[in-house]
Amino acid sequence: MRFARVGAAGKEIPVVLHGDQLFDLRGITPDIVGTFLESGTDAVSAALAAGELPEVRGGDVRYGAAIARPSSIICIGMNYAAHAAESGSAPPEDLVVFLKTANTIAGPFDDVALPPSSVKTDWEVELGVVIGQRTSYLDSPAAARAHIAGYVVANDLSEREWQIERSLGQWSKGKSFAGFSPVGPFLVTTDEVDAGMLRVRSWVNGEPRQDSSTADMIFGVDEILYRLSQFLVLEPGDLVLTGTPEGVALSGRFPYLASGDVVELEIDGLGRQRQAVR
Amino acid sequence: MRFARVGAAGKEIPVVLHGDQLFDLRGITPDIVGTFLESGTDAVSAALAAGELPEVRGGDVRYGAAIARPSSIICIGMNYAAHAAESGSAPPEDLVVFLKTANTIAGPFDDVALPPSSVKTDWEVELGVVIGQRTSYLDSPAAARAHIAGYVVANDLSEREWQIERSLGQWSKGKSFAGFSPVGPFLVTTDEVDAGMLRVRSWVNGEPRQDSSTADMIFGVDEILYRLSQFLVLEPGDLVLTGTPEGVALSGRFPYLASGDVVELEIDGLGRQRQAVR
Repeated sequence: MRFARVGAAGKEIPVVLHGDQLFDLRGITPDIVGTFLESGTDAVSAALAAGELPEVRGGDVRYGAAIARPSSIICIGMNYAAHAAESGSAPPEDLVVFLKTANTIAGPFDDVALPPSSVKTDWEVELGVVIGQRTSYLDSPAAARAHIAGYVVANDLSEREWQIERSLGQWSKGKSFAGFSPVGPFLVTTDEVDAGMLRVRSWVNGEPRQDSSTADMIFGVDEILYRLSQFLVLEPGDLVLTGTPEGVALSGRFPYLASGDVVELEIDGLGRQRQAVR
Repeated sequence: MRFARVGAAGKEIPVVLHGDQLFDLRGITPDIVGTFLESGTDAVSAALAAGELPEVRGGDVRYGAAIARPSSIICIGMNYAAHAAESGSAPPEDLVVFLKTANTIAGPFDDVALPPSSVKTDWEVELGVVIGQRTSYLDSPAAARAHIAGYVVANDLSEREWQIERSLGQWSKGKSFAGFSPVGPFLVTTDEVDAGMLRVRSWVNGEPRQDSSTADMIFGVDEILYRLSQFLVLEPGDLVLTGTPEGVALSGRFPYLASGDVVELEIDGLGRQRQAVR
């Protein structure tokens, strides 16, 4: 099943996709929030089958972030060996974990505002995991799957000067500018994709940048949730960003983002984002 | 003015203190949340003066966290020179910033649960700043004050093995265990205290541990908000922890917390916390 949030910024309504039609979910939930995700998809399936959900006009509708603002955005760093190498690091032996402020969440087609005087704003396409059930002290990676509501495309935008040179070591400083976490367009439930083998790509101005597979992750989705659950509590609606593959500007192989650039990000089965930089 | 939240965990009601009486604020706000803090204290003053607020029985009432769960908990590291030294670091030349997950917030007298097999759980008494107005790209430190709702005592509990040895450099891993951010008992508005010269103390089992003054901060409250506002957006109800002074277990001078210990933390004018460790 695929969920989305459509409408003007701050006034999005929750919808479910059925073929190429959008159906209004407000009779079931006010938004794509934790309590809705926790309750599963049975109510939506039943309402769709019964024809109880009003259709929403598609067309030129704006897509907001695919989920309402989460309680936490938790990020895994250096989770693809080739990206660790291009960043000047060895592959990590355990999770590298940092946080973004949750108010960075943005729509998948919203413009990206460069921070004032930034010269090192970088893209990072990532598989995002949306939590469906409270997750604490899992017994094993195998126990993780039942705690996942679904997957999203995310751009973990990063200002490298603030993240690295000005950070004194703690990365969150370069990760939390307004609008730095575009998410969506769709939240795709776990039954629709195999998160362990998805092609993950990005482009700048139509030229390829990142092109890898989630199969190349050092720590897979289940392993990530299992390990996270040993030191924090994940809640329904929380967002876990699983790391980015090689092909970002930090590598030195490509220029950083500049006003007028267009960034595109796609994960097979999850949809495509497009952001104009200004 | 002093606000608090009293009642069973998850069912706290917002109150205002007047002398040693507590008055129920639910006629004005459902909780001590950002929208309430943003609107200022005039409505509360008027309702108090008119005798419109029902009194709440004090006595053995439980105090919850002094504010509802924030959108973000933003922490400043190494902000007292003597603590930086005891941690093996030079005083930083700019803010060191990391985040805790917001679901770590806890009541000031709640028990602290040691993480499983933790042997390095540490206390950190800190002045907490509660944001009253949206804060982004402040022009100067002087502009910060108008964005502050008030101050709280906070314990930035930290598991040092996860924060340092197991972190691969990013501290949030050791900061986000359940219950690791006791806050309160009171939110004290800015007119009642001078945040730049408050005595900050902690004890374990009645023995002194930390004893410093906010005057010893490297970056004062206004400077912190000014600098944070250059790379993230603070929202009403957000919590900024301003760093801890020397006297924590990480120094090697004191043992880490063990089951049965009692931690107390106090900031002059803001109240005192007490947590049993289990």
